[in-house]
Amino acid sequence: MDNPLTFPKGFLSCAKNVGIKDETLDFTVIYSEVRAAAAAMFTQNQFCGAPVVVGKEHIKNGYLQAFVINSKNANVATGQQGIVDVHHIIDTLAEELAVNPEDILPSSTGVIGVPLPVKNILAGIPGLKQELTKGALQKSAEAIMTTDTFPKYRKEQVGNATVCAIAKGSGMIEPNMATMLSYIVTDAEIAPEHLQKILKRAVNVSFNMVSVDGDTSTSDTVAIMANGLAGPVDLDEFEQALTAMLISLAKDLARDGEGATKLVEVNVSGANSESEAKRMVKGIINSPLVKTAIFGADPNWGRIISTIGNADFTIDPAKVSVSFGDLIVFKDGEPTAPNQEELAKYLKGNDIGIFVSLGQGPGNATGWGCDLSYDYVRINGEYTT
Amino acid sequence: MDNPLTFPKGFLSCAKNVGIKDETLDFTVIYSEVRAAAAAMFTQNQFCGAPVVVGKEHIKNGYLQAFVINSKNANVATGQQGIVDVHHIIDTLAEELAVNPEDILPSSTGVIGVPLPVKNILAGIPGLKQELTKGALQKSAEAIMTTDTFPKYRKEQVGNATVCAIAKGSGMIEPNMATMLSYIVTDAEIAPEHLQKILKRAVNVSFNMVSVDGDTSTSDTVAIMANGLAGPVDLDEFEQALTAMLISLAKDLARDGEGATKLVEVNVSGANSESEAKRMVKGIINSPLVKTAIFGADPNWGRIISTIGNADFTIDPAKVSVSFGDLIVFKDGEPTAPNQEELAKYLKGNDIGIFVSLGQGPGNATGWGCDLSYDYVRINGEYTT
Repeated sequence: MDNPLTFPKGFLSCAKNVGIKDETLDFTVIYSEVRAAAAAMFTQNQFCGAPVVVGKEHIKNGYLQAFVINSKNANVATGQQGIVDVHHIIDTLAEELAVNPEDILPSSTGVIGVPLPVKNILAGIPGLKQELTKGALQKSAEAIMTTDTFPKYRKEQVGNATVCAIAKGSGMIEPNMATMLSYIVTDAEIAPEHLQKILKRAVNVSFNMVSVDGDTSTSDTVAIMANGLAGPVDLDEFEQALTAMLISLAKDLARDGEGATKLVEVNVSGANSESEAKRMVKGIINSPLVKTAIFGADPNWGRIISTIGNADFTIDPAKVSVSFGDLIVFKDGEPTAPNQEELAKYLKGNDIGIFVSLGQGPGNATGWGCDLSYDYVRINGEYTT
Repeated sequence: MDNPLTFPKGFLSCAKNVGIKDETLDFTVIYSEVRAAAAAMFTQNQFCGAPVVVGKEHIKNGYLQAFVINSKNANVATGQQGIVDVHHIIDTLAEELAVNPEDILPSSTGVIGVPLPVKNILAGIPGLKQELTKGALQKSAEAIMTTDTFPKYRKEQVGNATVCAIAKGSGMIEPNMATMLSYIVTDAEIAPEHLQKILKRAVNVSFNMVSVDGDTSTSDTVAIMANGLAGPVDLDEFEQALTAMLISLAKDLARDGEGATKLVEVNVSGANSESEAKRMVKGIINSPLVKTAIFGADPNWGRIISTIGNADFTIDPAKVSVSFGDLIVFKDGEPTAPNQEELAKYLKGNDIGIFVSLGQGPGNATGWGCDLSYDYVRINGEYTT
């Protein structure tokens, strides 16, 4: 069997420290030996980072050959110099790899508003082609981490092809049509126009349904390269595998949210539409009062009721039911009397499920978040100082 | 000179403990000796509490004679029994005060989903008329507190008339067309139709511009009685005084937000409209990343930039400027180099001003919030347990 940490056919990577902030891995390049069909989705934040501005241009023709990513500095709100720095990095790397600069997709993640230490990055590029290996999947996942506490990666087979994905999250996480950072590579043969549609559908039910703190980052990027070296695959099978993989990574992002001690899954059913169900899922996941109650294992379901009541569409309070796991706390508009011991035990667990039924229509959605702990405050009160 | 803690002409109150949760003041009645013109605004939460349901009916004809308020239990999500309990309290109080039950406006604030201990409240009513005094303004403000750390009240003269107001806030605070709880009484003579318009305009630039945690409560109520015993006043002068008083109370709510260590004032100017400016003010005030940075006195202005970039209207990043107090950190789309020592000193203060200029149009708005501290997590992780 294949080493579980190696890349699909024709993909190589390296991950290193170039000294952007400290001694940890902060720079990675993921490279395809042949030009690959590609697709990407980006943040909708209007202050998007310089690498996002450049990346949007480079993905337009549907082909890429490399991702270049640094952590510890987002290159956002850095003015015109930020764009100049991105092009300098891409041009230097294109020469080293002997690829077209427009086939490179750049990303940066980390602090906003601090000039990128571009000299450190440029110094790390010469000779890099010799450092590329098939076995650095996990190290590449580590190199894109900021306040993440563990690297996030997955690998799956689809027919003859392999799909690998890495992701990072942690804070400033409420993706909007994209996510923080995630990179996917496959040796399946898939045309760019199919790849973009498959990626969008998979992201909409995975990364786009995660929220750590309701703040959409300036750097969100998810990108995929399919280099075709394993030949064609069944597209439905590929989409199913990709979607399952991204949902699994999305749950990792939520579980590893800044300061998180619990993974929270929220399902809303019986809404008039999927869109209404999604908005309510986000409302519950982002409520600081719900999040702190879950951190404290406090059975304070009234805060969920209050969030439901703030829906931007009409609900019928008399049809609303709420459960923690299997334990119903509110049914058809009236409080129930759940077993308090069982409820306390359930809320002390690491995985909390909140199920809301609105009794109105077929709209259904699931999303993931985390609790709000003292550590979230500590991490974010001390970030740059 | 008048005792600063007495009510306007013809108003009396009492505040007591009836044993709803602990030994602190938890019940107050504010009464006018004559029927008074009245106006009120309520929460837009669709799971509004039983007292809000009843209060909306009672204010319809524009007259009231008493407010009855308990803290420590919100009587929300308590099903049909909640409504029965409210009417029981009102009918008992109406008999004690010899007023029309429909001239009483009820409110409850506290935990959601727990049946109201109505027997305790009913036991506190007989003989209450003898306990009413002119001097219990501060005690009434104390009786409506939940996690507030100090009572909030104001008193002003307008011509021959006096206006007194009390308010409570602390958590689940993002008023929407009303606020948590605030009661205003005046002996000015003002017709109900004017009173409602004046109240709405004053609330929109005061309580409606405060947010502690973005959660709109199920119990928000602001109500005013004007009993006319001091005769007519200049309505513009009255509105100015009321608006200033409510802005001052709104800042108290923000400063005393759950766990707050700092008052944060956010001003957005140069938006296309006032409505856009208001939405951006709320976005910045509610960002957990901005709030934790302010708690940590971290000059991480990139988080403000990111929140601005998430506006739901088009901005031009090249025209955006951001200041902390007088210290400009970002000007016309480029980072500046503010004096770091002065910046650190400013951010260690108790009052933080964030000024954003969008350079697009005449839209301007100011709002108030607070930082996000360890104590917010502690208070809300342990609320019911």
